[in-house]
Amino acid sequence: MIFQSEYDVIVVGGGHAGAEATAAAANLGAKTLLVTMNLQSIGQMSCNPAMGGIAKGQIVREIDALGGYSGVITDKTMIQFKMLNQSKGPAMWSPRAQSDRMRFAEEWRLSLEQTENVDFFQDMVKSLIIENGKVCGVNTAMGMSIRSKAVVLTNGTFLNGLIHIGEKQFGGGRMGEGAAFGITEQLVDLGFEAGRMKTGTPPRVDGRSIDYSKMIEQPGDENPSKFSYTNTPKLTKQRSCWITYTNQEVHDLLREGFDRSPMFNGTIKSTGPRYCPSIEDKINRFADKDRHQIFAEPEGWNTVEYYINGFSTSLPDDVQAKALRSIPGFEHAKIFRPGYAIEYDFFPPTQLKHTLETKLIENLYCAGQINGTTGYEEAASQGLMAGINAALKIQEKDPFILNRNEAYIGVLIDDLITKGTEEPYRMFTSRAEYRILLRQDNADERLTRKGFDIGLASEDRLKRMEEKFDKAEKLVHYFEENSIKPQEINDVIEEREGTPLKQPNKMISVISRPELKLSDFTKLDRVNEFIENNNYDQEELEQTEIQIKYKGYIKKEQQNADKLHRLENLKIPVDVDYSSFVSMSIEARQKLTKIKPATVAQASRISGVSPADISVLLIYMGR
Amino acid sequence: MIFQSEYDVIVVGGGHAGAEATAAAANLGAKTLLVTMNLQSIGQMSCNPAMGGIAKGQIVREIDALGGYSGVITDKTMIQFKMLNQSKGPAMWSPRAQSDRMRFAEEWRLSLEQTENVDFFQDMVKSLIIENGKVCGVNTAMGMSIRSKAVVLTNGTFLNGLIHIGEKQFGGGRMGEGAAFGITEQLVDLGFEAGRMKTGTPPRVDGRSIDYSKMIEQPGDENPSKFSYTNTPKLTKQRSCWITYTNQEVHDLLREGFDRSPMFNGTIKSTGPRYCPSIEDKINRFADKDRHQIFAEPEGWNTVEYYINGFSTSLPDDVQAKALRSIPGFEHAKIFRPGYAIEYDFFPPTQLKHTLETKLIENLYCAGQINGTTGYEEAASQGLMAGINAALKIQEKDPFILNRNEAYIGVLIDDLITKGTEEPYRMFTSRAEYRILLRQDNADERLTRKGFDIGLASEDRLKRMEEKFDKAEKLVHYFEENSIKPQEINDVIEEREGTPLKQPNKMISVISRPELKLSDFTKLDRVNEFIENNNYDQEELEQTEIQIKYKGYIKKEQQNADKLHRLENLKIPVDVDYSSFVSMSIEARQKLTKIKPATVAQASRISGVSPADISVLLIYMGR
Repeated sequence: MIFQSEYDVIVVGGGHAGAEATAAAANLGAKTLLVTMNLQSIGQMSCNPAMGGIAKGQIVREIDALGGYSGVITDKTMIQFKMLNQSKGPAMWSPRAQSDRMRFAEEWRLSLEQTENVDFFQDMVKSLIIENGKVCGVNTAMGMSIRSKAVVLTNGTFLNGLIHIGEKQFGGGRMGEGAAFGITEQLVDLGFEAGRMKTGTPPRVDGRSIDYSKMIEQPGDENPSKFSYTNTPKLTKQRSCWITYTNQEVHDLLREGFDRSPMFNGTIKSTGPRYCPSIEDKINRFADKDRHQIFAEPEGWNTVEYYINGFSTSLPDDVQAKALRSIPGFEHAKIFRPGYAIEYDFFPPTQLKHTLETKLIENLYCAGQINGTTGYEEAASQGLMAGINAALKIQEKDPFILNRNEAYIGVLIDDLITKGTEEPYRMFTSRAEYRILLRQDNADERLTRKGFDIGLASEDRLKRMEEKFDKAEKLVHYFEENSIKPQEINDVIEEREGTPLKQPNKMISVISRPELKLSDFTKLDRVNEFIENNNYDQEELEQTEIQIKYKGYIKKEQQNADKLHRLENLKIPVDVDYSSFVSMSIEARQKLTKIKPATVAQASRISGVSPADISVLLIYMGR
Repeated sequence: MIFQSEYDVIVVGGGHAGAEATAAAANLGAKTLLVTMNLQSIGQMSCNPAMGGIAKGQIVREIDALGGYSGVITDKTMIQFKMLNQSKGPAMWSPRAQSDRMRFAEEWRLSLEQTENVDFFQDMVKSLIIENGKVCGVNTAMGMSIRSKAVVLTNGTFLNGLIHIGEKQFGGGRMGEGAAFGITEQLVDLGFEAGRMKTGTPPRVDGRSIDYSKMIEQPGDENPSKFSYTNTPKLTKQRSCWITYTNQEVHDLLREGFDRSPMFNGTIKSTGPRYCPSIEDKINRFADKDRHQIFAEPEGWNTVEYYINGFSTSLPDDVQAKALRSIPGFEHAKIFRPGYAIEYDFFPPTQLKHTLETKLIENLYCAGQINGTTGYEEAASQGLMAGINAALKIQEKDPFILNRNEAYIGVLIDDLITKGTEEPYRMFTSRAEYRILLRQDNADERLTRKGFDIGLASEDRLKRMEEKFDKAEKLVHYFEENSIKPQEINDVIEEREGTPLKQPNKMISVISRPELKLSDFTKLDRVNEFIENNNYDQEELEQTEIQIKYKGYIKKEQQNADKLHRLENLKIPVDVDYSSFVSMSIEARQKLTKIKPATVAQASRISGVSPADISVLLIYMGR
């Protein structure tokens, strides 16, 4: 026997979900086996070479705060960092990084290798061993039966994967890799409901064939931050992305291929991600828009391969090429791999508990695209939670569940479990009722203690977090105690067209003025002395500033949340014409029209109907 | 159309052969397209993570001297270097390096990306476009027709690849990757003869589960050399390999699985590499040997994965595991991937010209395992030659052919073309009639001028080579002109038990004494002054020493070669009992018995019958 004893946890699949599940279970002391079809492809970024973004960046920070690996690995392999939404105030700040695709996968592989309790095996899982309604291991294509106390399924797009390019179709889990068979059929036999989803990816292009002079350079942040709260290295150099735009000619060329599009001619019946639409979908749905933004993103430090973000497509390859070459900068583009769509099996996540354990089969967990989500971050966070809960369950400990007001991860899983999803589910800040509380800067405050208590976040991590917030509190206190004189700050205030102080004022109230920054105060000798004496670093100063400046917002948001709560049980008139609500999102209008919820409560639980949409509804109802 | 214009050369496959073919054709100015099933797997080391070895190391040096990439890429990614056969005198020295498997593939990919005229496309080639007996491009699985003037096929083990582990079989080109279909069938329809070969690979093991205290450490060389004649970096740190041995218990356990072995129960009918036998083959063929050497080789700088060299097997996985765990050090071995055998299609290479162009289809070239060879170096060198000749042909230039006395590459291709092969062909020093001339230290002297003349080796490379040999010549001349006095060297001679000088002697004749080294002379002030003034480096001194010390050997070898030549047409008596020639290799005895050659000439052309074997035959015949 290759396998001498039973494992605690077997993780099936080595993508973002599988890799996090493996790390989490193993770090909680579970003897864990990662079974993957190809050991060379662990942590492979199947689509764009980037982590984070709006709401997604917050999730990566949460994973990191809990003791997961995605943040650390992104930091170690990133080639560009941007804090998105910086103009909108720190509660909306969203970190995003481009990674070197090869290094990212290598780093995941090596990090898992360096994790105690992790074993590896290269094989395809064909079925589960199930005894008395409980999963007891897996059976593989090589004919091995490997026993375990729990199994985490993270099959991504591999289950009965079918790739489409124009009229052509091939079996496969990713381009160039085979599909996986057997698990869907077995689970359906066991009473699971299975569905089919679709996602897509754009062409990859030879960077040497791009004319960058026709594009707008998008460099990384001048002072790049990072994802992990640990002391991962900071970026010292970066690679730029490039922006260009489609035009009417491009759209016309794409439209010429619509009758050969598997999306439009009925070949693909499953639903794709609404928020990562293909270029043909964008042109079709937003016919009045005369251009769409396209990003050329480098795939690594040295490779010439570029990812064409915004140009996901399953149109025939000749149509792809012709249309792409009509976009400024891509006139002579050489294509390494065409874009394609892929259909795969998923299991509606309403069949899961909040721990991501299936209701039907004990100790069987599912994470990632198999649950109907899209996105690396969504997958990774589910993998983390499934790995944690699988380990805790077999150790007979309490489950680990995050609430909607604690983490985006809590929102994600609660949405999946209670609402289900009919299209690939992606996280947005608008999905969170308490998004002002769920910031990227305080994920450690929200979650590291929890991660530590279950044994995942290290003590060092906990101490770092506590020190950061203790110091921020101390500095807030200092600003509450100390005053500033008009002559010390009025020059700055006047320069920025604010109202000058007339008398000394507590610093705290002056800092919270919109025209001022904390850095205007740290220039003062006595403040500077306090900061130097107490060794404040950039992150601690930032946290202090956010706490002072955000106080008002947080309070207001809390009131809104309370108000929404009270109004939530209101009945909606039956004759509402949602299509007339122009300030409501198109998705919400469509879904509300279709589902016709009886109450605001029910409306708010529909996937894709955001708190903002509910506000529109409430305004209509006179609230 | 994705492809806007015709290519000069399309290379099918991105392994060692395909990668070298791509680089060579492109560097000769041919617009070259590399089509591979997976762009992430270019330069993948499918089996052991090492380049070089006896005869193979010389080939890598030859590839480098001509301007190929394998030497440079190995240097950049190696984790250990050993000059094998150092006890045997420099003509037998054979460089060998372990590489970091992931870095090696990454470096190949990036090097090709940085090569002008190289385009990439990820797809599977299903058939060739053939018009009027001439290849004009390829058709792919995605349905593209890509036109070109020439095509190089380097399909490795992918054509109808079938993997075996015990009784189990799966289609695949490598474990975890799909097989390729269509080309064999088309070529057979066109009149090609196709055959089936078999190769195998050992299990990969978790290095954390190995007990190194029960093994013998095999560190790299203290002063590691390198492959490339260019200024690639020298190794500054190295990783060790580890040696252990099988024993009777291991053999007994393996034998228990023989009835389930695809090798022995008739499932695999094709022939495997005689010189890379599986462990079951070794036990079966050498039943009297009570142990076999096993090497645990690290797969990279940081990975815990180990390659178990010497334990290639297609026995059932349970038998593999049980037997492996009976080898000292592997008692608790955890297996990442079991060993397996793979059967694949090849085309007997007698169907090729010396340029590696097929005789039947113009401008179609084949290189690597598709020609019935085994080994990365054999594949890479064929790829290089096929790429060169494809480019030269379409540029209407003279073909580039190396003779048997010019390079191992010449021996390799001449053997393939004129003798064919019935089992995977591997290079040995014994296959070369002029092996004293075909050294690793003088591959640049033999080949760089030729590489430069066709436009492949750079001018810088040529200058380096010429300077090295000019300087060696100058130093030889210095030793011819200058004398040494007895009192200057007799202490050293006596210490090494040589016969002391009685009178001053020309240095050249003293250096060539077996007990003395060049370094004994460079200590002399006047010699040291000459060396310092002329800036001699280590490689130049080594070359000088080899030229002085080898003079006699080379002369003798030349005489042997001449003698063999004269005797070559002798008729062999019909009643020779080859099985009685105990000093002849087993392979030669088997083959001679089977083929019964009429003349010594014919005998010498049989694959696997070495010049040494011919000598035995000649002695028997009284010559």
